[in-house]
Amino acid sequence: MNEFSKEQLELAKSRVTPHIHRTPIMSSRAINKMVGAELFFKCENFQKGGAYKIRGALNATLSLSEDDRQNGLATHSSGNFAQAVALSANMTSTEAYIVMPEAAPKVKVEAVREYGAQISMSGNRLIDREELLEKVVQNTGAARLHPSNDVPVIIGQGTCALELLEDVALDSIITPVGGGGVIGGTCLACKYNSPTTKVYGAEPAGAADAHASLQKGEIVPSINPETIADGLRTQLGSNNFPIIKEHVSEIILVDDSEIIAAMRLIWERMKIIVEPSSAITLASIMKRKDQFKNQKIGLIITGGNVDLSRLPFNQM
Amino acid sequence: MNEFSKEQLELAKSRVTPHIHRTPIMSSRAINKMVGAELFFKCENFQKGGAYKIRGALNATLSLSEDDRQNGLATHSSGNFAQAVALSANMTSTEAYIVMPEAAPKVKVEAVREYGAQISMSGNRLIDREELLEKVVQNTGAARLHPSNDVPVIIGQGTCALELLEDVALDSIITPVGGGGVIGGTCLACKYNSPTTKVYGAEPAGAADAHASLQKGEIVPSINPETIADGLRTQLGSNNFPIIKEHVSEIILVDDSEIIAAMRLIWERMKIIVEPSSAITLASIMKRKDQFKNQKIGLIITGGNVDLSRLPFNQM
Repeated sequence: MNEFSKEQLELAKSRVTPHIHRTPIMSSRAINKMVGAELFFKCENFQKGGAYKIRGALNATLSLSEDDRQNGLATHSSGNFAQAVALSANMTSTEAYIVMPEAAPKVKVEAVREYGAQISMSGNRLIDREELLEKVVQNTGAARLHPSNDVPVIIGQGTCALELLEDVALDSIITPVGGGGVIGGTCLACKYNSPTTKVYGAEPAGAADAHASLQKGEIVPSINPETIADGLRTQLGSNNFPIIKEHVSEIILVDDSEIIAAMRLIWERMKIIVEPSSAITLASIMKRKDQFKNQKIGLIITGGNVDLSRLPFNQM
Repeated sequence: MNEFSKEQLELAKSRVTPHIHRTPIMSSRAINKMVGAELFFKCENFQKGGAYKIRGALNATLSLSEDDRQNGLATHSSGNFAQAVALSANMTSTEAYIVMPEAAPKVKVEAVREYGAQISMSGNRLIDREELLEKVVQNTGAARLHPSNDVPVIIGQGTCALELLEDVALDSIITPVGGGGVIGGTCLACKYNSPTTKVYGAEPAGAADAHASLQKGEIVPSINPETIADGLRTQLGSNNFPIIKEHVSEIILVDDSEIIAAMRLIWERMKIIVEPSSAITLASIMKRKDQFKNQKIGLIITGGNVDLSRLPFNQM
């Protein structure tokens, strides 16, 4: 049960599909022309909760027995996974207890609250969040979900690339790299369903722990990450690292200024709202035009939750 | 030929359909809940050129003989119609000469330039634009297109509501009111294809000339309009006013602060970029919740061309 397999991925798909949106795949002729490749944006910013995270959270929740989830679900998250767990609790009629760091975007905190979750604010360091979560779990008896390292969460995130591959034959898929959930799940989807499709990660240069981990062959912790991509400040986990190590071709590092430029391009040309942690995928292609020339490339647009009061465009 | 008729509307549809996108119709459960009605957003922000205006411009262009358009197309516009004419010229292999006011959003000026049009900058008053356009037409022999009052333009804009009505049976459709093109075309679509669907206009309180025109029974000029909705600063025309007078149920006035709040709601909840001139449709429903309760309402989301360096959200 706690193993990766093609069967578990198919099971995850059948579990989550009835409850989530099959998000559209969008393209932009102008951007294709600009990069010299054919890009397919899998728009999870239109997903329930505004991000792909519901896939993993819901698969994990539905993997639990009703007994195991009767005291609620608990997690810590800077935002999108928090919304996903709150939504999953809603869908399965149980409580959600969410630990959020003080630096989380206001719009994400508000959204989590609106879904009816109980929020505890913690310090911004990983250890602050984990300690508070530990207390919450002890007090409530809730089932703990990890945003990116629980096996059912990783498998659930893989359903996104699975849908993309059902619709388009791709040379490559690029996903953001934060905690390793979506890139891990994407590796599974390609491994089982499209083994010739290469998987790339896009990571902020100011939070380059996954890049370092692949080079070193072991997980390098994320210490004081500095990047506008607030969803990508976390580090890889013991369950997703092996599949990432096995299947990821390369992790491309991108500066924040490149992320902001790509984000602006997507907003202006495609008229969709994507968060910095998603725009990083396009930024990495723009940085490596020659490498990706003439390819068909899937980009996992992970989410669209941004704080509109604090946009980075005015400083340009 | 210069008359409104069901046949001309059908002909416009067959002319423009092969060249444009059939834009998606989006919904938001959260916004529906908030307003107590079922809203269908016709997303012309995803249209070619980032706005519905290509429909009217292209229909007018294709209504001309090749001789009549051989010296190019000319117009004045603060932005979206300019892009539409530039695109139409492109599609029909002729020149585009565009007069744009100095106050036009930078992103719109740049987009027009990228489509290969020749731009002349004028003062911001209507008379400044018209005088310069007159000169341009005399110098080039280009065919002049009016953004909202040429009969083929009005009919072309009607194809947007036509698509919406093909997909959903609606109690009401709300469009922005600026020069009267899209609301005029929407009146035609409803009159010929869904006579029980009521048509409403949404107009900025700081540019309330259409509201005043309906009250007075004649066109009241737009003098010194002040509104964030830059596309709605123009006045009704002799060709669209009669159909608007005949068919529009009411023009609802909305303050700029209400437009900004609705725009923010659409960006945050739907993850799509809409311009203030489009968000005004939702603003008018939020202002009149009781009146529209439980209705199925179509909203023409006219465009998504905004200057990201000058967003209104920081001031909230």
